[in-house]
Amino acid sequence: MNYLTASKEQLIAEREALMAKYNEFKAKGLKLDMSRGKPSAAQLDESEGLLTVLSKNEDTIVDGLDTRNYGILDGIVPARKLFAELLEVPFENVIVGGNSSLTFMYDTIMRLCMFGAAGVNEPWFDCKDRKFLCPVPGYDRHFTITEQFGFEMINIPMDENGPDMDMVEKLVAEDASIKGIWCVPKYTNPEGVVYSDEVVHRLANLKPAAKDFRIMWDNAYCVHTISQDDKLANIFTECKAAGNEDMFFEYTSTSKITYPGAGVCAFVASDANIAWTKKLMNAQAISADKVNQLRHVKFFKNAQGILDHMKKHAAILKPKFDMVLSKLDTYIKDAGVGQWKVPNGGYFVAYAAYPGTAKAIFAMCKEAGLVITNAGAVYPYGKDPQDSILRIAPSLPPVSELEVAMDLFCTCALITAIDKILETK
Amino acid sequence: MNYLTASKEQLIAEREALMAKYNEFKAKGLKLDMSRGKPSAAQLDESEGLLTVLSKNEDTIVDGLDTRNYGILDGIVPARKLFAELLEVPFENVIVGGNSSLTFMYDTIMRLCMFGAAGVNEPWFDCKDRKFLCPVPGYDRHFTITEQFGFEMINIPMDENGPDMDMVEKLVAEDASIKGIWCVPKYTNPEGVVYSDEVVHRLANLKPAAKDFRIMWDNAYCVHTISQDDKLANIFTECKAAGNEDMFFEYTSTSKITYPGAGVCAFVASDANIAWTKKLMNAQAISADKVNQLRHVKFFKNAQGILDHMKKHAAILKPKFDMVLSKLDTYIKDAGVGQWKVPNGGYFVAYAAYPGTAKAIFAMCKEAGLVITNAGAVYPYGKDPQDSILRIAPSLPPVSELEVAMDLFCTCALITAIDKILETK
Repeated sequence: MNYLTASKEQLIAEREALMAKYNEFKAKGLKLDMSRGKPSAAQLDESEGLLTVLSKNEDTIVDGLDTRNYGILDGIVPARKLFAELLEVPFENVIVGGNSSLTFMYDTIMRLCMFGAAGVNEPWFDCKDRKFLCPVPGYDRHFTITEQFGFEMINIPMDENGPDMDMVEKLVAEDASIKGIWCVPKYTNPEGVVYSDEVVHRLANLKPAAKDFRIMWDNAYCVHTISQDDKLANIFTECKAAGNEDMFFEYTSTSKITYPGAGVCAFVASDANIAWTKKLMNAQAISADKVNQLRHVKFFKNAQGILDHMKKHAAILKPKFDMVLSKLDTYIKDAGVGQWKVPNGGYFVAYAAYPGTAKAIFAMCKEAGLVITNAGAVYPYGKDPQDSILRIAPSLPPVSELEVAMDLFCTCALITAIDKILETK
Repeated sequence: MNYLTASKEQLIAEREALMAKYNEFKAKGLKLDMSRGKPSAAQLDESEGLLTVLSKNEDTIVDGLDTRNYGILDGIVPARKLFAELLEVPFENVIVGGNSSLTFMYDTIMRLCMFGAAGVNEPWFDCKDRKFLCPVPGYDRHFTITEQFGFEMINIPMDENGPDMDMVEKLVAEDASIKGIWCVPKYTNPEGVVYSDEVVHRLANLKPAAKDFRIMWDNAYCVHTISQDDKLANIFTECKAAGNEDMFFEYTSTSKITYPGAGVCAFVASDANIAWTKKLMNAQAISADKVNQLRHVKFFKNAQGILDHMKKHAAILKPKFDMVLSKLDTYIKDAGVGQWKVPNGGYFVAYAAYPGTAKAIFAMCKEAGLVITNAGAVYPYGKDPQDSILRIAPSLPPVSELEVAMDLFCTCALITAIDKILETK
């Protein structure tokens, strides 16, 4: 039954049936969690070899370098080459860091705020009405960084090709206080969108009023394919071709390849931006954990090693995503009160609920023992103007739990949609 | 022969003999390095067990927590308890971080500059003539941090008990733009001084004009005894007793216990400062490498395990320090042109050369193939007002190389002293 065309009486009857079902869930005393984009233990277990790939003193030496000791601010060369191969950039333009690309992003924004960009040297902090573009829905931890540094965040709508480029081009051309844009270009968090070649091209060819405008290119899910792989255009070569080589910073990490807490991250930038970063980093660090970098190099050997490893993750994740998507199909499709994209990779499914119901769905789920990501979390300041988008994270729970969780979730989504529709009948 | 009382003729003859010796060194084409405070491979090899102490998937779980996955911003509890036992503070006041206490210090200063101290909320950056006290000689990387953040650095003379507390007390009471002081309280870099109980007590009882004045307590060498252990007063309890519990931040790490690039660091602070740090850190990080934290916990088991481990380091380091000290005795004592302290621990020997000769000694050593730490490096801005202090780092070279290096070093120290004395004869 399509709720949008159903009569008031039909909806009231439907609601009653759904509430009976909901109350059954409530009576079960469930404890379910679909809130966190964490790999499951089964995925982590695939990296067991990482623990012992360096097991003797002599294993820690590579090309005459003792990775245990001080030095090598930009990471060991074989690790830089591994990420260079993976991201198809020169290794000279790669810095390999510690366990967190998020920290590297934060530190980049911090450096720009305090010291100004390479060759510009005007601290962003001197721009009192500084602003940042935030394609939405997006990643809450990006928004937290720019919020902490006092940026006004501007929502940029997303479609199936990426951010609304007409809007981006217009805004950055007009306003020199717009200093950057957050992008998760492949398998976006939470929708799983891959930026189209045209969108990447237009981003690389932006003509911002701010000479220190920067694209924060968080390529977190570059190899995180679940079904079919999608090709993302190369921001490094696109920016270079556009004469905008200093306009981007790219990040990735092995957080969702090996271990979230104990992986390594990589940073890609132009020659000038690498030099700028190293100069400022030199006061902050002597080196990242090079032993762990070497572990990753020896464990994977090359980019193909990473891709092969990710097939094992995909095999674990696919049944979970399939469960989520099939439940949405079963419950929501005919009712016509929600929308979602089928992601080919990444960690999430974004559910666009009937406008004005996301918070209510979250609350109903919680009351029945299911934790989902907070409504609004995928928007700056936690404010979803439509109160619609909910992020479903299928990676951590087993399929059997996901089945129950999605039955409950969809039931709540239907009930709250009926409530909202009835308000206008 | 005491050079200070010798005749001009005696000095000229002595110089001729020393130059002959120097030229012999030069002819050898030496390649020696006493510049870096790096542990030797033999010391690092003592931590081989760390590599495999976690070798199976299940080893990474502790008290039900999967250390491989996301979360736990302040470090795993057993690691916090390990450092709490070592530093004699409550574990609730310890955060265990990544591989670098230097990075943690930088980030603390950054937070103070950008957001202001706990409960004060006035960014240090708003104080345009901000200043920092620097006991000298000291650690160049501390000075680099406060230089990058635009502090004027004020030299504070050191004696065998620590910084000149009369001067410190007077300055901080008078000037609210003085925001902090760098301290390496035990086995100072480079002199090996241990702050006396009185100095620690007076530091903890400072009455600064700046309500956001902070003591940066870099307890890097807390367990780095070479000959006899010295007891350092506890800054945490001293500050608490003085009603100044928010006035200090303490740091240490296993960089010179296990691996310089791949250890773990710890941060100690008051309840309010821990809460302030975690609140701001939360935008910068999800967690440090908890797998590596657990490696350290399982490898050492408890504080005694660390102390036992450090005895192995001391056995390797003592012959090296003895060589340096015996050469200084042999060459310099009678000549009376240099001074040094005998450190009980730490990583360095500071040589106070005849005033006005440090740069010349550095240059002569370099010309003959011996690299020592740059003259001036132990002072802010690299400027030693007396051109006198040179840092000798005996840890990395084998004893046989140190013997040659010190013969050469002392020869240069004597020649340059004669040159300087002759200027006034």
